[in-house]
Amino acid sequence: MSIDLTEETITDAVQQTFEGCTNERMREVFVTLVQHLHDFAREVRLTSEEWFTAVDFLERVGRISSPTRQEFVLLSDILGLSVLVDQINHGNGSATDSTLLGPFYVEGRPRAENGADISGGVAGMPLFFSGTVVDPDGRPVVGADVDTWHSDSEGFYDVQQADKLHGEPAMRALLDTDDDGRFWYRSIVPRYYPVPTDGPCGEILRAAGRSPMRPEHIHFWLHAEGYEPLVTMLFRGDDPYLERDAVFGAKRSLVADFVQHEAGETAPHGTVMSEPFQTVEWTFTLAPARG
Amino acid sequence: MSIDLTEETITDAVQQTFEGCTNERMREVFVTLVQHLHDFAREVRLTSEEWFTAVDFLERVGRISSPTRQEFVLLSDILGLSVLVDQINHGNGSATDSTLLGPFYVEGRPRAENGADISGGVAGMPLFFSGTVVDPDGRPVVGADVDTWHSDSEGFYDVQQADKLHGEPAMRALLDTDDDGRFWYRSIVPRYYPVPTDGPCGEILRAAGRSPMRPEHIHFWLHAEGYEPLVTMLFRGDDPYLERDAVFGAKRSLVADFVQHEAGETAPHGTVMSEPFQTVEWTFTLAPARG
Repeated sequence: MSIDLTEETITDAVQQTFEGCTNERMREVFVTLVQHLHDFAREVRLTSEEWFTAVDFLERVGRISSPTRQEFVLLSDILGLSVLVDQINHGNGSATDSTLLGPFYVEGRPRAENGADISGGVAGMPLFFSGTVVDPDGRPVVGADVDTWHSDSEGFYDVQQADKLHGEPAMRALLDTDDDGRFWYRSIVPRYYPVPTDGPCGEILRAAGRSPMRPEHIHFWLHAEGYEPLVTMLFRGDDPYLERDAVFGAKRSLVADFVQHEAGETAPHGTVMSEPFQTVEWTFTLAPARG
Repeated sequence: MSIDLTEETITDAVQQTFEGCTNERMREVFVTLVQHLHDFAREVRLTSEEWFTAVDFLERVGRISSPTRQEFVLLSDILGLSVLVDQINHGNGSATDSTLLGPFYVEGRPRAENGADISGGVAGMPLFFSGTVVDPDGRPVVGADVDTWHSDSEGFYDVQQADKLHGEPAMRALLDTDDDGRFWYRSIVPRYYPVPTDGPCGEILRAAGRSPMRPEHIHFWLHAEGYEPLVTMLFRGDDPYLERDAVFGAKRSLVADFVQHEAGETAPHGTVMSEPFQTVEWTFTLAPARG
C-alpha cells in the first residue's frame, strides 16, 4: 500500500516495491540505497530548494558529459567513492595496488607497437617507459593488453586539447606485452594538474575551498586472460601534491622513479639523445582471475 | 593527508576536505552525503562492475533529459525521495497537503484567462475545473499564480505527444485568481497512466517487477506573495491505482469529486452541453510565508 505515506512510513513502502526483483543482488542494492538516500534526506532535513538544486546539478553533470568528458566519474572521484570502491574490491593481495580510473580514459584509443612514440607530436621532455607484466610468481604475462594514458607537460590530456590536436589522440595507446611480458614506449613527461573545474564538479571544489590538484601520474589499465584486470597509476615521489590528491587516489606503493638524464646520454632504445629526457621502469604484478 | 587511504580511513579523509566550506549548511549536507554514500558502498560491498553500471546509468539519465523530460526527477520519484522531501518540508499545518512535482512540469507554459479552454484542441470528455484559493482563515487569496497541467484521456502529456501537437502546449496553463480568489478553466478529463518507461528509470521498474502506473490526477502549483508555494495534485477516489501509485504521491486528503454530467446538462460557464462532461471543484488553502 502506497498511499498517505509519511516521513516515517515511506522508506519501508519504497523498499517493499523492490521485493519483486528477480535478481536478489539488485534487491539488496536498491533496498540499501533507498535506506541511505532517505536517511540522508531525513538527517540533513533536506529542503525542497536543496532538492531542486541537486536535480539541476545532476542535469548539468549530464549535459557536460560526453565520451571524452566523464563528469559523473569525476563526481564519484571527488566524493571519494571511486577509491572506496577500488579498496572494497582490490583491498589486498600480492598484485600491484590498483587505484581509480579517472575521467580521462577514452575507448577509442589507438593501438601502438612497442617502442612507438605515442606522444602524438605534442611538445615536451621525452619520456621512455619500460614495463614488465608478471604473475605473482614473477613469471612473465605474455600478450597482456596494456592501456596507458597521461597528460602533457602542462597537465592537459589530449581530449582537453581537441581543438589544438584536431581531435587526434595523443599520449594514449593500447600496447601488448611481448614474449618476455615486456612493453615499452616513448612519450613526453606529464605534469601535476587540476581536475576540470569548468563544470559542475568545479563548483563543489570552489565552494568547499578544496584544491583541484592531482599529483603527476601515468595511467595504466592491464587486461590479460586468466588474470584480474588492473587499473592503476604511477606517481612521482617528489610531487608537491602527492599527499593531497584531489581525488584521493595516490599511494606510496605506486611511486616510481622518474630518472632524469642529460643531453648526450643514450635512451633505452639506443639513440644518443640531443636533449634531456626521463626514463621510468616498473613491474606490474597481476592477480589470477577469481572464480 | 590524502594518501594511502583505506576502506576504513577514506570517509574521514573526504569529509575533512569539506571543512573549508564557507557555508556551514553546505558542509553539513556534504559530510552527511559522503557518510551515507560510503556506508552504502561498504554495506553492499559495491563491485567495480556495479559502479560502472551506476555511472553508465546516470550518464544515460543525463542523455535522455531535456527541458520537457525530467528523468532525474523521475528517478527521485520512483525512489520515493521526492515525496520524502515533500513530507520533510510540508509535514503538517492547516494548508492543503502538498505532494510531488513530477517530471512533466514545463516552464514554457502559456498564460490563460479564467474560463479559457486549455485543452489545446485535444479530444476528450470536457472537464470544467473551478478552484478557490484561500488563506488559513478562509479569506480569498487574490492574484495568486496557478499552474495546472494534466494528461489527456489516454494518459499522455502534451510533451509526450510533441509530434502530434507540433510542439504546441496543451492541457497546461498559468492562470490567476480573481478578486474572490477564484480561478476556473475548461479542459478534458485526464486518465491514469504509466510513468515513462522507455528511459533508464523504466529499466529499474521492469527489473524490480514494479507497476509503472500512476492514478489519474491534475497537477497544481500555486504561488502568491506572502504565502508558501504549494505543489499538489488532485486524485479521483475510485481510481484503480490510487493505493499503489508508482511514485508514492497519492493522498486521501487530495481525493476530489469528479462529478459526471450527462448530455443536456448545463456546464459551469452556462452552456447547455451536447455531450457528457465532468466538473471538479476544490478549495486550496495556502500557508503564510515562513520567516
